[in-house]
Amino acid sequence: MPAILEFPDTVSATRPLDPSSNPAPPHIVIVGAGFGGLYAARELRHARARVTLLDRRNFHLFQPLLYQVATAALSPGNIAYPIRAILRGQPNTQVLLAEVTGVDLAARQIVLASADDEPENRLDYDCLILAPGARDSYFGHEQWAQWAPGLKSLEEGLELRRRLLLAFEHAERESDAARRRTWLTVAIIGGGPTGVEMAGAIAEIARQVMRHDFRAIDPAETRVVLIEAGPRILPTFAPELSRRAEEALRQRGVELWLNTPVTGIDARELLAGREHNIQSLRAGLIVWAAGVQASALGESLGVPLERGGRVRVQADLSLQNHPEVFIIGDLAWCAGDDGAPLPGLAPVAMQQGRHAAGNILRALRAAETQGGDAFVSGTPFYRPFHYFDKGNLATIGKAAAVGQWGRFKLWGLPAWLVWVGVHIRYLIGFRNRLLVSLEWLWAYLTTQRAARLITHQARQ
Amino acid sequence: MPAILEFPDTVSATRPLDPSSNPAPPHIVIVGAGFGGLYAARELRHARARVTLLDRRNFHLFQPLLYQVATAALSPGNIAYPIRAILRGQPNTQVLLAEVTGVDLAARQIVLASADDEPENRLDYDCLILAPGARDSYFGHEQWAQWAPGLKSLEEGLELRRRLLLAFEHAERESDAARRRTWLTVAIIGGGPTGVEMAGAIAEIARQVMRHDFRAIDPAETRVVLIEAGPRILPTFAPELSRRAEEALRQRGVELWLNTPVTGIDARELLAGREHNIQSLRAGLIVWAAGVQASALGESLGVPLERGGRVRVQADLSLQNHPEVFIIGDLAWCAGDDGAPLPGLAPVAMQQGRHAAGNILRALRAAETQGGDAFVSGTPFYRPFHYFDKGNLATIGKAAAVGQWGRFKLWGLPAWLVWVGVHIRYLIGFRNRLLVSLEWLWAYLTTQRAARLITHQARQ
Repeated sequence: MPAILEFPDTVSATRPLDPSSNPAPPHIVIVGAGFGGLYAARELRHARARVTLLDRRNFHLFQPLLYQVATAALSPGNIAYPIRAILRGQPNTQVLLAEVTGVDLAARQIVLASADDEPENRLDYDCLILAPGARDSYFGHEQWAQWAPGLKSLEEGLELRRRLLLAFEHAERESDAARRRTWLTVAIIGGGPTGVEMAGAIAEIARQVMRHDFRAIDPAETRVVLIEAGPRILPTFAPELSRRAEEALRQRGVELWLNTPVTGIDARELLAGREHNIQSLRAGLIVWAAGVQASALGESLGVPLERGGRVRVQADLSLQNHPEVFIIGDLAWCAGDDGAPLPGLAPVAMQQGRHAAGNILRALRAAETQGGDAFVSGTPFYRPFHYFDKGNLATIGKAAAVGQWGRFKLWGLPAWLVWVGVHIRYLIGFRNRLLVSLEWLWAYLTTQRAARLITHQARQ
Repeated sequence: MPAILEFPDTVSATRPLDPSSNPAPPHIVIVGAGFGGLYAARELRHARARVTLLDRRNFHLFQPLLYQVATAALSPGNIAYPIRAILRGQPNTQVLLAEVTGVDLAARQIVLASADDEPENRLDYDCLILAPGARDSYFGHEQWAQWAPGLKSLEEGLELRRRLLLAFEHAERESDAARRRTWLTVAIIGGGPTGVEMAGAIAEIARQVMRHDFRAIDPAETRVVLIEAGPRILPTFAPELSRRAEEALRQRGVELWLNTPVTGIDARELLAGREHNIQSLRAGLIVWAAGVQASALGESLGVPLERGGRVRVQADLSLQNHPEVFIIGDLAWCAGDDGAPLPGLAPVAMQQGRHAAGNILRALRAAETQGGDAFVSGTPFYRPFHYFDKGNLATIGKAAAVGQWGRFKLWGLPAWLVWVGVHIRYLIGFRNRLLVSLEWLWAYLTTQRAARLITHQARQ
């Protein structure tokens, strides 16, 4: 749509706030408004500093429930909330819609994407918090992306929903039995939490939600295949919980292909298996849940990268030789107390966001008393980060989930109730997003809005 | 996105239900699941016939509230509902996702859009109800569409929302005062109900909803200009109510340009006025609410068309010389009791849908008793359509609307309360769409879903 070209998602210049206090307060720039960046920004609400939070989207996405948008259980408005609305009451913080393309550590500047006809656009920082998150990884098979979308962005979630629903519509109109079979086959690649959640949710939709909706097909015939290269699903959980999850999926009619790496993906067909045992699967929907890699922003730092494109940080979450730069969330390679790198989970990002902000506050306070640049004289006051393990949850479907807290394990209904409780709690923490669709009436009384999402913006 | 090509929105063949009763029941085809088509389908739920409802979208859109999606008050899920879910309990009816490109009256067939590589795809009917609705009309200036989207489809609503919200984001980052001014200017073309509703809602968002969200701009500075070629807004209402609406808009800071036809639209600029008084207006958002025309499907009938591309129907809503074809809603040119054509309003379409279905039921019953083709021997039992005027409502904003029922007029808070009541009633009639975002929890208990919309499907 040509008009979109006329509405570049970034514009030429950036207007800083005029420094209201004297001397000019330090400028803290946060890149990314995911769990890490957002919790850091909130922690800095009383900081004697000018805070700028940049994100290429105008909303915070509640990623843990994105699979429910992809499976039509939730509307985008239920899990996405405008960043401006979240931080409206935080006068020291400015929210900017902008795509950050690089970091110039030497110049202490970030580079912003500009429209083609416009000059490069940079933003100075005194302190930088990098929280750009992660993206799908196809392990060098980028061409697979078009046939097997992942589930990182809201648009990917909506695209998966579109393909899932269209597959049933095609099947309803398809006269050829083989083609109908293909439309009613869903292949999910990757047995991690996302793959398990997708497989369970799609099986439920087909067998329960859509049961009475069609006349020519029976959605219950839908074949859901979960393909995992390793020997078990949910490898980050205890083997016993993997087994429980596998049982729960099989009860829901999900086929499990274990020890089955995917070797090729094409339009509605994939190849999977080893050596002499490669099998083909034709499917109306193929979902990619097999891998993620850190944001490409890490590459612009010019430092060696760990596995998955992550950047190794010091114990205090700062970048070596750059005490003014913090890296948190999925981009950070951060060793846990056991020495192993921390996983890319929301609780890790939240805790790191709060901790990085805390170190910055300590440095600012030190500089106020002792004078000098906070990020030189203040850095001795940084504290090391320790992750408080809140456990690990994965849901299979209605009344079925698995949870693990250290040695303590939970499954079935109890685990699912914990899962529901945790997510309701965090959602309600985000201004009752559960009630978002009463908003339209409520809006007239409170002049609030719920659905301020620019959902077309990042779509290719 | 190439993958979309691999998912054509129509597929090659259509599978009719096998005729369950003997002799094969007549096949009633309904084109369009707007208010007209949907109400016709519901009325036929007990008909001894095979009913097929086709729409190119998988959801029914509650059009009267679309402007609230465009102004971010509502989520798409609040005003769109899957057609299958609405008709799931109606076994004689099959819903098909398909785009109808033409009607072959002689062969009693409709032509369906096919993927390029596939043969033309036709569907036989014994009886046809055409309810394809209307689209934007740019009066021969189709190139204006890209700069000034209308408000007919859900995608247009989301595109307007995207542009509205992006305009504020651009302004927040814009250093040049003139360009910032442009980003903070909204031009709405057309002073009918849609234009008035958009102007009022955008003024409210800028002055109230977004008030505390920005740091570099004050959204309250937003300039909202409503441009009308005629001497007054809401021309279908009594002059007194037009005046009241104009007052209410001015109170909300909306500029009114009356007697000002638009003569040109370009990227973020328009020209408006007469002869020697043409003025230019630069605006970050331009909304087209100036005109609609009937669906292009009317042209495929090969009959003379009335103004706006409408098809003149007989008193019983059937097409002349084709008692087996009914035309309802925005495509129908149907004289009211006063001889003037009925307006393109939801109540008209609903009543026509029910009435056309009623005539069909009468014909079917007659044929059952007397034998013969229902749409030959039964047609004498058709009854003429009389529109029961439910009045006319337009809302300007919070606690402000105008309403007219014949000679009886209402404005201000009372009219607005009526407006809210009417819309809540119709929404609740649609399975508590107000509660749609509690759905995600509820879904686990009832296996229902609310958000099953294929919103990418029809986007160009």
